[in-house]
Amino acid sequence: MAEPSGGESVITRAVRILDAFGPETTVLSLSEVSRRARLPLATTARLVKEMTRHGLLDRDEHRRVLIGTRMWELAERASPVKDLREAALQHMGDLHAVVGHSTQLGVLEGEEVLFVERLTAPGSVVNVTKIAGRLPLNASSAGLVLLAHAPDGLRERVLRGPLRSYTPHTLDREAALRAELAEVRRRGFAFCPGHIHPEATGVAVPVYRGRRVVAALGLVVPNDEEAWAFSRPLVLAGLALGRALEPNGARTGERVLRSGLR
Amino acid sequence: MAEPSGGESVITRAVRILDAFGPETTVLSLSEVSRRARLPLATTARLVKEMTRHGLLDRDEHRRVLIGTRMWELAERASPVKDLREAALQHMGDLHAVVGHSTQLGVLEGEEVLFVERLTAPGSVVNVTKIAGRLPLNASSAGLVLLAHAPDGLRERVLRGPLRSYTPHTLDREAALRAELAEVRRRGFAFCPGHIHPEATGVAVPVYRGRRVVAALGLVVPNDEEAWAFSRPLVLAGLALGRALEPNGARTGERVLRSGLR
Repeated sequence: MAEPSGGESVITRAVRILDAFGPETTVLSLSEVSRRARLPLATTARLVKEMTRHGLLDRDEHRRVLIGTRMWELAERASPVKDLREAALQHMGDLHAVVGHSTQLGVLEGEEVLFVERLTAPGSVVNVTKIAGRLPLNASSAGLVLLAHAPDGLRERVLRGPLRSYTPHTLDREAALRAELAEVRRRGFAFCPGHIHPEATGVAVPVYRGRRVVAALGLVVPNDEEAWAFSRPLVLAGLALGRALEPNGARTGERVLRSGLR
Repeated sequence: MAEPSGGESVITRAVRILDAFGPETTVLSLSEVSRRARLPLATTARLVKEMTRHGLLDRDEHRRVLIGTRMWELAERASPVKDLREAALQHMGDLHAVVGHSTQLGVLEGEEVLFVERLTAPGSVVNVTKIAGRLPLNASSAGLVLLAHAPDGLRERVLRGPLRSYTPHTLDREAALRAELAEVRRRGFAFCPGHIHPEATGVAVPVYRGRRVVAALGLVVPNDEEAWAFSRPLVLAGLALGRALEPNGARTGERVLRSGLR
């Protein structure tokens, strides 16, 4: 591997530069990139110049730096989550139309939920998820679903903490979290009134590709007495998406989903 | 810039490796990556290993290589097309529901249309567009819209050719293309019966952010006598998306769009 003088590889530095950008920081000055990437200004300037030449980055009319459309294209056209997102979008569109609240799709990435798609509408209840944003597994309804079906090793690591808390209702204690994960497996879906925001309830179901849970499909609805009723259309949309992903697959998990509401 | 022995930078090589993957080649063996990236196998193996460590690439259970979810996350969360896509998805969902045919959103990237979003349905008419796929500006309805509103220099370069042809109806001659671009500007939208496939008609409208055309919103419908009628809901959806992008902006282009159908 080509190692420049600093001892850190070019790839490591390039990733640090890409990592400087986020949903709230889509456009940065060169010195902001340097500071956020923790790289010397001269190194940053050289790398930004080369990455811009390849379209990984772009410069706007004020010479500020942003992620390049080519970078997006390289990541998206062979994206590992593309089939899932394309299949999900139709069912999410139907669900969103029927329930009138935000719906999102999350996958397990490291020890967090990574949201790969989201449909929202003006005036929906507060919703902290963003496309390509992350949330802790213990705090979000999608996270509880993914954690309930995760490999034992990962689940035990997460259970040992630390567990992030957002409200007094967040499951931030090991015993309570462990009990709720068992309940999510038994019931077939996660129901989280006020776990992230007092005014919002997260509901999420597992999405099966055959026997494997590959994602969690969720809704964020107002935290009131009607919230529970939204689990019915959500379960239906989750089942429909699983069928679309693997039309002839075995469906062990679906028995639970089907019966969880009764 | 750190330049390894070959004279080509690490970034150049890494981009070549990422570029080996595409919609039809999402999973590749190491030797396929090496061949497609035109890099020695040992160099490819070293770079793939490091890129995998950073999540830019991933390995499946057969040790084959694919784009990493982290790569997608880095590109997507600060994506330059994200606001546009998020705003467009709702209007595309409405349009798709109303017309029952595929709808897609394209932006100008280099001298091609890059499709950044697409909603489709089983049983729709044949449609060659893909999310993060490209089409030539002269051949597609979205391309004609973007080319009609492109800077003069780019338009003249594209007009000089070469112009790709798909069917006898593709605009692959300079004079015909120039005349149609004037017509697209006058009429406000592009109408392309059989230009890419004999059975399909592409229709596309410009999406304005204020006075600037930032994208083309399109439909692919069957190539029959009813095709023209789909321009009405498409124009409406394009106007609605432009309003969503810049609620208080100046709207010079919309006058044309509004009057083009009469």
